[in-house]
Amino acid sequence: VNLRTLELTISYDGTRLVGWQRQAEGESVQGLLEEALAHLEGAPVTVHGAGRTDAGVHALAQVASVQLTCEHPPEVLQRALNASLPWDVRVVNVREADAAFHARFSARAKTYRYVLCNGPFVSPFEHRYVWHVREPLDLDAMQAAAQTLVGTHDFAAFCSSGSTPATTVRTIVRSSMTTRAGSALLLPPGAPGAVQAGRVDESTLLVYEVIGNGFLRHMVRAIVGTLVDIGRGRHPPAWMAALLEDGRRSDAGATAPAQGLFLVRVDYY
Amino acid sequence: VNLRTLELTISYDGTRLVGWQRQAEGESVQGLLEEALAHLEGAPVTVHGAGRTDAGVHALAQVASVQLTCEHPPEVLQRALNASLPWDVRVVNVREADAAFHARFSARAKTYRYVLCNGPFVSPFEHRYVWHVREPLDLDAMQAAAQTLVGTHDFAAFCSSGSTPATTVRTIVRSSMTTRAGSALLLPPGAPGAVQAGRVDESTLLVYEVIGNGFLRHMVRAIVGTLVDIGRGRHPPAWMAALLEDGRRSDAGATAPAQGLFLVRVDYY
Repeated sequence: VNLRTLELTISYDGTRLVGWQRQAEGESVQGLLEEALAHLEGAPVTVHGAGRTDAGVHALAQVASVQLTCEHPPEVLQRALNASLPWDVRVVNVREADAAFHARFSARAKTYRYVLCNGPFVSPFEHRYVWHVREPLDLDAMQAAAQTLVGTHDFAAFCSSGSTPATTVRTIVRSSMTTRAGSALLLPPGAPGAVQAGRVDESTLLVYEVIGNGFLRHMVRAIVGTLVDIGRGRHPPAWMAALLEDGRRSDAGATAPAQGLFLVRVDYY
Repeated sequence: VNLRTLELTISYDGTRLVGWQRQAEGESVQGLLEEALAHLEGAPVTVHGAGRTDAGVHALAQVASVQLTCEHPPEVLQRALNASLPWDVRVVNVREADAAFHARFSARAKTYRYVLCNGPFVSPFEHRYVWHVREPLDLDAMQAAAQTLVGTHDFAAFCSSGSTPATTVRTIVRSSMTTRAGSALLLPPGAPGAVQAGRVDESTLLVYEVIGNGFLRHMVRAIVGTLVDIGRGRHPPAWMAALLEDGRRSDAGATAPAQGLFLVRVDYY
């Protein structure tokens, strides 16, 4: 039998899912994919994901690897998988990969995005995909603190207390907070149908984007909880550097809710 | 008692709603607003909407008028309404209006948008807001047919057979079909986190936008069903003009599904 290695790219709305990893109860992305693939392969299969996203976390382009013997071309596999998966999990690409390819171990960098809605209300079209923070946030302070994270640091203060990794040192190559007008998801920019200025109280979306060689459990959400504490003025931007210096998890901000987090992209060697 | 007239702007995700209008069963936008306002007013109130959107149809900026005696400032009313409404209905603005203002009768023009997803799969983030058409569509033919509708015409071929309006003549000032890359709702254009070219099979979103002085029951959805028949090559673009000339409802295309339709904007004199 010829074993082939495939790379799957998967997009999912995590709202009702228990996360990437198969659990005793509930639907996981890994479980749904393994079930659909086993049906095509005629035997149990194991799918490896680049990032083990938690319950409620979304993915624009999670990457997974799988080894199969079945001979369907990639586009047939993609169509068959999408026909059996629920609508909130879509296989957006399938391609042949080197035998050595492993979605997690071959990954060079991952991009995560966290979306905050800062204003009096959340658009119904963004409700599932943001953390709503009503109080005004100081974007400059948050951006200054976010910049501090770039480089190689010990992220122990941002590592879930239940987790015991070999090392808590990670390298971050981008860490940036930007802003854009809310209520805009379905409005092509500059479209004549954009809601009238003055007729709508816009909320502002704050988008935190971080790229790194690896992330600890809950690391992005702990960073965002800390950035929001800084944005609220509870701590100065320099607090972030102090936490990197010698912080414990209990010193940093709370873990931000899962629903604002997206795994955006995985880069490979 | 001083009666004041208020203009409310409302955004809603119509997925689970029975539409704008109050029904015997299920939650309607009108019903939810009237209930929340009656609580503030201490008496029953009637809310008039600019457009009676059907079950499943969304609104970015529906407009409603209401007369109240209660003296809360507009921003207090907005906050109180949003605190009691479900997340899928948001009051995005409240302002004082002239006593003569009526959301429906004072309306000068309405803008509707219909979103088609044309490709092998639908992004989980767009699933609730598009009609998925798998077969390739001829955008040029659809755009040519869409243009035909601009002007004052008898739209009898696009009027729901259960409806008996005084006249089926309406004036359309814009009718246009444009395209944009799909899977892009949550991606700021040009962002470094945009999913890698080549790693994702993009679906294409086709966006139909129409502005007119008024619309018959199911008119936009009947137009879209007809445009899709033309895009599939079942009829030439000139079919649209022939339907305007002397079409009956049974001659035109089927009514497109509600979930792709958005009331985008209402203009007033």
